[in-house]
Amino acid sequence: MLLLNKFFYPESIAVIGASRKPGKVGHEILRILKENKDKGVFRGELYAVNPDAREILGVPTYPSILELPSPPDLAVIAIPAKFVPQAVDELGKIGTKNAVVISGGFAEIGGEGIVLQDQLVRIARKHGIRIVGPNCIGILCPESGVDTMFLPYEKEIGGKTLKSLPRPKTGSISLITQSGAFGVACLDYMAGERLGLAKFVSYGNRADVNEAELIDYLASDPRTRVILVYAESIERGKEFIEAAKRAVLSKPIVVLKAARTKAGARAAVSHTAAMAGMDDIYDAAFRQAGIIRVNNVEELFDVAKALSMQPPAKGKRIAVLTDGGGAGVMTVDELERRGQIIADLSGETEERLEELKRRGVIPPIASVKNPIDLTGSADDEAYVRSLEVLLESPVVDGVIILALHHIPRLTGSLPEKLAEVARGVDKPIVFCDVGQGEYAVAFREKFEEHGFPAYPTPERAAIAMSALTAYGMIRRKFLEGGLITP
Amino acid sequence: MLLLNKFFYPESIAVIGASRKPGKVGHEILRILKENKDKGVFRGELYAVNPDAREILGVPTYPSILELPSPPDLAVIAIPAKFVPQAVDELGKIGTKNAVVISGGFAEIGGEGIVLQDQLVRIARKHGIRIVGPNCIGILCPESGVDTMFLPYEKEIGGKTLKSLPRPKTGSISLITQSGAFGVACLDYMAGERLGLAKFVSYGNRADVNEAELIDYLASDPRTRVILVYAESIERGKEFIEAAKRAVLSKPIVVLKAARTKAGARAAVSHTAAMAGMDDIYDAAFRQAGIIRVNNVEELFDVAKALSMQPPAKGKRIAVLTDGGGAGVMTVDELERRGQIIADLSGETEERLEELKRRGVIPPIASVKNPIDLTGSADDEAYVRSLEVLLESPVVDGVIILALHHIPRLTGSLPEKLAEVARGVDKPIVFCDVGQGEYAVAFREKFEEHGFPAYPTPERAAIAMSALTAYGMIRRKFLEGGLITP
Repeated sequence: MLLLNKFFYPESIAVIGASRKPGKVGHEILRILKENKDKGVFRGELYAVNPDAREILGVPTYPSILELPSPPDLAVIAIPAKFVPQAVDELGKIGTKNAVVISGGFAEIGGEGIVLQDQLVRIARKHGIRIVGPNCIGILCPESGVDTMFLPYEKEIGGKTLKSLPRPKTGSISLITQSGAFGVACLDYMAGERLGLAKFVSYGNRADVNEAELIDYLASDPRTRVILVYAESIERGKEFIEAAKRAVLSKPIVVLKAARTKAGARAAVSHTAAMAGMDDIYDAAFRQAGIIRVNNVEELFDVAKALSMQPPAKGKRIAVLTDGGGAGVMTVDELERRGQIIADLSGETEERLEELKRRGVIPPIASVKNPIDLTGSADDEAYVRSLEVLLESPVVDGVIILALHHIPRLTGSLPEKLAEVARGVDKPIVFCDVGQGEYAVAFREKFEEHGFPAYPTPERAAIAMSALTAYGMIRRKFLEGGLITP
Repeated sequence: MLLLNKFFYPESIAVIGASRKPGKVGHEILRILKENKDKGVFRGELYAVNPDAREILGVPTYPSILELPSPPDLAVIAIPAKFVPQAVDELGKIGTKNAVVISGGFAEIGGEGIVLQDQLVRIARKHGIRIVGPNCIGILCPESGVDTMFLPYEKEIGGKTLKSLPRPKTGSISLITQSGAFGVACLDYMAGERLGLAKFVSYGNRADVNEAELIDYLASDPRTRVILVYAESIERGKEFIEAAKRAVLSKPIVVLKAARTKAGARAAVSHTAAMAGMDDIYDAAFRQAGIIRVNNVEELFDVAKALSMQPPAKGKRIAVLTDGGGAGVMTVDELERRGQIIADLSGETEERLEELKRRGVIPPIASVKNPIDLTGSADDEAYVRSLEVLLESPVVDGVIILALHHIPRLTGSLPEKLAEVARGVDKPIVFCDVGQGEYAVAFREKFEEHGFPAYPTPERAAIAMSALTAYGMIRRKFLEGGLITP
């Protein structure tokens, strides 16, 4: 564990294969790390290794690893594959214990690549060096400034220069990924969706550090609240499952396992040379381990957002509070499809809502059955008082607030008013406003600033809520020591 | 048909129940129509009816309908329900033939509301007046400037005033909706997603004009390329199905039918007083009519976008062209889940791609099996030449281009280069770049400017392509006079 920690919080980094030439991997990595150091985000020492330079980008540069002034906590290796084993041997000699090998040309190309990777691993083991990679994009930790994302930072389009690879802000979602290209796309997706990142690891050929170890590490990482895994295949499945079982007691694990279908599996085989196994075996294993499995990219991040912002639900009885009957119906449809229970409010809860109606707090034409339809005549107060009732109700485990903002009497203060009501309540709340115009976007952003995950369609909100009940169930079962049944 | 046309292209409009008071429905509708007239979007005459004013917002105002200088082509009625039948009677006397009744308080409230609605319909029939509504949001036609969307145009949030109900630009997607609140949210969604609108109708209680007639009208409307329907229940199902069958020969119909599940149906009953029928009956009827049914709000618009921009596919054999193996695998997964065929390229197509490899046009490590993985070394030319091969291939019916923009050698000119290759080709192409950062968004926008529907996740692109093959199949079967089999 302690060793892996240095991958994310090194006090010194050396870039092996640093280059003067913009666009080269060894240049881009050094440039980003230098920028992070200049900005004060990366606070450690930075070195470069290049036989022909004494300085690159203002970073002190040494002709060889053996000449480095002190052993770096972390080496980032971006040199041709055939030179990597020797570099690792030299790192071992000076006492470095952690290396990210970006270089490709190992097991993924077969033949001599496999031999080279075996050699790399043997040398690393001899010195007790831990390797992330090879054939990977590496590590991103916005908090510490460790960032080996060497792909172009900016690109030109339509006469404008735009950020080509935006980094997410610091946050509590961690992602480990088999695919580097897809990992980079995920960072871009997270940045645009304003999702915060704790740790990102593209582990490539996982010659040494594998998914299981990374999950153990992230389980122990206080910054990580949700662990996301993207994989086409999983190696050493038993270790993985055991690590997941340990982790889910403290934080949820969400897996997007591609190559689900026969066609997908065939495609994955030609892509990674990793055997993509039978999907139903994965499915059973994930269930046994308490892993939440998602079906697609959007769901991965929708679910991650909900799990990073809201507590798990204590049961599956969900209430829907809306001002649009149709949207309420769609939410209920998706909840039922996802195995949730539409909370039956009859009795005290309904009586309290009827009382609000009598007192003129909620409109007389409102429907107080679940989904509760406050109608287009609703105002902020109607939402506030109704939410209060639902949060206090013993028959409600979670609430989806669906406030279509278009109606006249809802205001931009609704998010903070509802946050006031929800403060200290241990029941998950998920928000939805349908629309992609500027007000809808601003309204959802404001809800998220107040801690409510917000979605642009009823179904996405229902999916997010379903993950919160799933994780609640997983935790209960694991804490009770029982097994998860489907 | 001709009569319905005046709802969208009237030469004169009278707002019955126009008000001086901002926020009132009769004020907001008049204000919007006046603005559209001032902007030159609405080119006809505009009148207001109000007993106590001679002029409102600069619009000539008359004390009663009977005193209007000439019968308006379209009357928009926003007065209390009990006065509506008389107003319609007066409209009949002066010779107006089309009225949108915004007012609520009819069948949806039961009891006397039902009686009032019957009376309204009787009077309208007597005069040969067509009614949209009552209890609706009405009509939006960005092309002609007819716009009865009375909900707040702007609202304040976080100290800023933002457009609360943005209108979509003029385009080729038409939407008819049972739910007004959800309809408004759809307009907001379309505006933000840059989807163009031809006609929008919120038909409310459909006392007179119903879904079937609207579908017939939209089928004949040259501006409409895709017809979207949102409904919780469908009345006069046989007429609806017959209208749909006629329409799908010329344009696709996509239906989002809520109240799919038992819980959803229960919720819908309390919401609309309309009987939400058994879902499998709807399913069978939709299939028989050649209607494309979608599962959620996002799919509705994703599919609409694809159908409005690309030709239907002649078969289900799809090729995926990518620079990210993982994303390719996910695309193939979703395609297979949706019943598509992953095109088998072996033979001539693969040979031509191999030839590109030999000539150094596509990288030597590329995989030329479907999904074709050009890898992170790909450049624009590799995409252009590969797409050319796929479009010419007799074994490919449609192509999903998945260009993760992050890699170094792809440029912002890719969209126009690919558009050049695709010009005049009658095979659908769908685009995907994963990411929500500024470059990804700009890249997708540029693809859309060039006519390629673009999506931020592989699965959404695959769903869009599946709709293009579904509509292709529907058209073939209907043109052959056969029936659709599941």
